[in-house]
Parts: sequence; C-alpha cells; structure tokens
Amino acid sequence: MSKSPKTAIILAGSGVFDGAEIHEATMTMYAVVKNGGSYQIFAPDIEQHHVINHITGEETNEKRNVMVEAARIARGNIKPLSELNMEDFDALMMPGGFGVAKNLSDFAFKGPDCNVLPDVERVIKDAVAQGKPIGALCISPAIVAKVLKGVSVTIGQDKDTAQAIEKMGSKHEITNHGEVVIDKTFKTATTPCYMLDATIADIAEGALNVTAAVFEMIK
Amino acid sequence: MSKSPKTAIILAGSGVFDGAEIHEATMTMYAVVKNGGSYQIFAPDIEQHHVINHITGEETNEKRNVMVEAARIARGNIKPLSELNMEDFDALMMPGGFGVAKNLSDFAFKGPDCNVLPDVERVIKDAVAQGKPIGALCISPAIVAKVLKGVSVTIGQDKDTAQAIEKMGSKHEITNHGEVVIDKTFKTATTPCYMLDATIADIAEGALNVTAAVFEMIK
Repeated sequence: MSKSPKTAIILAGSGVFDGAEIHEATMTMYAVVKNGGSYQIFAPDIEQHHVINHITGEETNEKRNVMVEAARIARGNIKPLSELNMEDFDALMMPGGFGVAKNLSDFAFKGPDCNVLPDVERVIKDAVAQGKPIGALCISPAIVAKVLKGVSVTIGQDKDTAQAIEKMGSKHEITNHGEVVIDKTFKTATTPCYMLDATIADIAEGALNVTAAVFEMIK
Repeated sequence: MSKSPKTAIILAGSGVFDGAEIHEATMTMYAVVKNGGSYQIFAPDIEQHHVINHITGEETNEKRNVMVEAARIARGNIKPLSELNMEDFDALMMPGGFGVAKNLSDFAFKGPDCNVLPDVERVIKDAVAQGKPIGALCISPAIVAKVLKGVSVTIGQDKDTAQAIEKMGSKHEITNHGEVVIDKTFKTATTPCYMLDATIADIAEGALNVTAAVFEMIK
C-alpha cells in the first residue's frame, strides 16, 4: 500500500434527497484520514437537477449549484470535477445520496438506461486503466456498474436497483451492514450504507471497511 | 449512567460558514450512537442570518431557513427547537459552526454583549435546572458561557473568543485536539474541534470524548 494514499472524493451536492448523503460523505473523509490517507474533494460545476426541502420531501423553486453546495461538506476546499486527473491520485471514492442518481447521472429517472456525467465516466475509466482502486457507497455502485460493464458490486438488498445493475450487464451481490464486495479485476470495493435501513454507526463502519479495502488494493 | 441516554442535538443550519459545521454535527450524532445513546435533532424554525457561498466565502442574495437546511444533516428527521422539552431527554448536545454565532445568537457580531435565541437559552437553563448534562463543541461553548455565567468552558486557544468568554463572567481553559473541559457544577463538557486547525479525525475524537464525558454525568 502507498504510504499515505492520495484519494479523490466525488460529491454530488449536500443533502441525501438532492445531493451527496452528508453522513456518508463525512464518514468517507474520516475513513480516508483514519486509514492513513489524505483527500481532495471534487464536484461537478453544474446546476442541481432540483432542490428538495428535506423536511417535506417536496421540490422547491430554488436553483443550486452542485459544487457550491458540496463545498459545505468540504469546508470550502473543493475543486471542479473537470480538473480531476486520476494521475494525481492513488484511489477514487464515491459516497452516495440521491445526487449521485440525479446530478452525477440520471439513474433515478432512467434506471439501467441512464446516462452518466462524462467527467464521472472519464475518471472511473481512467482509474481502472491506471490500476487504481475505486470505492463506492450506497447508490454509487450503480453508476460504477453502468460505466464498468461486467463488474461485481453491491447496493445491499434493494431488488429493483439490483435488477437494474444486472440489466446493465454487471453483477449484484446481496450484503448487509458494513459488508464490502470486492471486484479484483476492476479493483472496485462497494458497500450498501443507507441503501439499507441503517444507523449512523453502520455508515461509519461501512465507510471504514470500504476504504480499508480500497487502500489494500493500491499497488 | 442511563441505559441508552436520550440526547437532544441542536443544529444551526448546514454548513460551517452560515450554519452547523457538518463534520461536527455528523460526528456528534455518531458519538451519541457509538456511546450507546439515541438522538433527536432540533433546530429553530427561523430564517438564516445570511447565506454564504462556501467556495468564495461571499454572501449570496438567497434566503434559507435554519431548520429546513439542518434537515439535510438530519435526513429529514428534525423538530422545531420550540418543541424541545428537556424533560423528555437525558442530555443536550450543541455542535459548532458559524450558525451558532449567527443564527442561534449574534455572538459573531456582538461578542460578549451578544443575545442568545430565547429557545436556546431556555433549553440550556432547563438542562441545568434538571441536572442534565450539556455537551458543546467548537464555538457553542461561548453561547453556553453567555447563558450560564460562571461556567468553565473551552473553545481551544483563540484569544479573542477566550477574552469574550471571560468578559461574560465565565472562565476559559486552553485545550488542544480532543481535550474536554468539564464543569461539574453546571454539568457541562466542552471541546474545541474546528476552533483549532483540525483534521476530521480530530473532530471525531473530540465528539467521542465530549459525548462520553456528557454521558458519564447523567444521573
């Protein structure tokens, strides 16, 4: 393993229903540092698909930018995803949240026929081409499964999402809290987090486990 | 200690510069569960003092509601602070972020002469009157120091804030990462977190330590 793995983390906004899931994002950052690594956060400089009032669950008439909102989790230390060059990093991590399925892709609306943001597709493919591991939490494995046809991932136990992953030509494995599915060919590690009915302690465990698995795959 | 301490957590929005510091809020929730407790999140149903673009640091012309934004951290499970009755809880926890000094009080603008939101003052005083411990992180101890004149707290090493606390008639103790100041008279436990130049692992350590100290003071 690299002495202090440099990790690129992609965030999809800030908030479970329209952006990055905040606990998963925070615990991923924590897990990277706790496992001896460092991180740089990236997000696409694009408008959010929509803004959801997280109390009522209803769409508001606001407009927000994915990178500007993700900067709340990053405490201002964030770069546009267009500037992410995997040559500069040892690993790639993707926490979950609906933003992954609404801002980084349109998986929430098109399922297996989704489109993935070109910059997300590029960095995932570059990581694989360069032999650098990818960690994905919650719903993010579905995007990894779309880009890396044939990969084995987990999103936990949700049948519809698992079927969508299989329809994309990838493989889904059922898991429980904190469990990690590793695909040694593609060097991916995935864990369900809030795709299961989880506590925040489960999220920490999942983030720590998937990050440890990712770091172990670094050359 | 109560078997599974019921903890009320007050959030001041979502984002370090205009709301609740996201890592401190998340790690407080994690620390409560990790120490065997449960939590309910509360926030005032009021407009934020302002909205800050967390990349540029500049004020935007948006209006956002403290409780609606805090619900992003709470994943929708949040109640208005006006409904917080300390009789229903064993402990009170207050993570930091500028929102504490801009939304829960005007400490950011008036320092020692600040006003504290009446509902915040009420629940802090009720906790003390009922012998229930209070944990405060980052800048929150300054608000506790305003309400509970004579209390000993820490915000780390920032001289201006420490002087403001002394001017309020309370006591400040210098601390480093993860250290906790306990006031046995008032049953408060405080820790500096991002009031120091800290990593996210320092925040987790501070949150875990201060929560353990709080839970030990529960009757």
